[in-house]
Amino acid sequence: MTRWKLTLEYDGGPFVGWQRQDNGPSVQEAVEKAIRAFSGETVTLHAAGRTDAGVHALGQVAHVDLAKSTDADTVQDAINFHLKPAPVAVVDVVEVDDEFHARFSATHRAYRYRILNRRAPLTLLAGRVWHVAAPLDAAAMQDAADALIGNHDFTSFRAAACQAKSPVKTLDALRVDHNGEEIAITVEARSFLHHQVRNIAGTLKLVGEGKWTRAGVEAALAARDRSRAGPTAPADGLYLMRVTYDPSP
Amino acid sequence: MTRWKLTLEYDGGPFVGWQRQDNGPSVQEAVEKAIRAFSGETVTLHAAGRTDAGVHALGQVAHVDLAKSTDADTVQDAINFHLKPAPVAVVDVVEVDDEFHARFSATHRAYRYRILNRRAPLTLLAGRVWHVAAPLDAAAMQDAADALIGNHDFTSFRAAACQAKSPVKTLDALRVDHNGEEIAITVEARSFLHHQVRNIAGTLKLVGEGKWTRAGVEAALAARDRSRAGPTAPADGLYLMRVTYDPSP
Repeated sequence: MTRWKLTLEYDGGPFVGWQRQDNGPSVQEAVEKAIRAFSGETVTLHAAGRTDAGVHALGQVAHVDLAKSTDADTVQDAINFHLKPAPVAVVDVVEVDDEFHARFSATHRAYRYRILNRRAPLTLLAGRVWHVAAPLDAAAMQDAADALIGNHDFTSFRAAACQAKSPVKTLDALRVDHNGEEIAITVEARSFLHHQVRNIAGTLKLVGEGKWTRAGVEAALAARDRSRAGPTAPADGLYLMRVTYDPSP
Repeated sequence: MTRWKLTLEYDGGPFVGWQRQDNGPSVQEAVEKAIRAFSGETVTLHAAGRTDAGVHALGQVAHVDLAKSTDADTVQDAINFHLKPAPVAVVDVVEVDDEFHARFSATHRAYRYRILNRRAPLTLLAGRVWHVAAPLDAAAMQDAADALIGNHDFTSFRAAACQAKSPVKTLDALRVDHNGEEIAITVEARSFLHHQVRNIAGTLKLVGEGKWTRAGVEAALAARDRSRAGPTAPADGLYLMRVTYDPSP
């Protein structure tokens, strides 16, 4: 058996999410089927993060064990061949040792939430960003975002369905970058609560519109009550950017 | 009558091109219908450039005369409202005087041709870039591109169907930018021949692959023979970026 680390990119739009489900096509199922078509082996993929329906990935990581003796380039090309026409691609393949686990060995995850802030509706970026027509103040958003950096109880930003044992997480970075019509919120942490990034994005958008202040965000965080923070931003704008392992495999 | 300058963004994928045609939906028809729905007026739009089927725009410019008395924001919002769900948006509206003509007053046009250069197939950028799997040498592409800058007879890079009176054009800029997996070819000129940018992109791609040299591109240009230059790159990667007027209206 050889363990392979796969880095995956996908358009989350047509999928019910990463995880295999009965109610529609999942990314996991698409990749597992492609692996079976190429290797003849029925496998279970383990991913670093179970992205929700509609959420995209540029650097999702998953691992799989294959009995078939082959090389990394062949694994990549063969899976990609059998994935067509699904909008999923293996962008990197590395052989790793048996200790490596895509989810449990991960030391760092980076997400990006993209907002297109303009009066006109979306064309080329439909399904790829959150369209916000009211002008947003990115500096105010960054100021409020600073209040969320560090170790906190994020109950106010946690989905009811979240299965994490603890609501306490450490945000290592939370940046609001303004570039032309686009505002990108980049968040980095060892791990995240369910909907945490989208709930932060939905809250910061209210700050950007001038409806909320940094003090309001601080109060919402301190309240440890989901109903006190902003709404969940749409899945369209969210990207799993990168998963980091130490040492890098 | 008021003359309005519209700046348009669109995903060219679902269209037969800018120009109204019998064989399918055109961008021109979509916008003219939206204007009629909002104003009750049957109008003809004049565009700066007649983009081909599948070609995108971030900054196409068109003008239209309307009898209806209104303001720029209303023109923008009303056309955008009636354009839905077509992937076309009016991103800017300015009132101009009767001397302004979107096509004939233009002094400068900028196109970009985007290539995604990687082994893995496309996911999020499907339909938005040209996927080239073989590694490209962007520096070699820029070196060959330099040979095309300036005033030349571009017969070798001109489509057979081109209706321009002269094959002589002046390329003011031709830049090859390499950023991660993406290679962007930016071309600027007062005006272009039919397929000129895509024929240049198809030729520079051969240089990037090492199949052609700068000397080969120079010889192709000098030959004034379409069969001597490279193939026409796919429409997916081409964007009309910007049209400039002097003085700016």
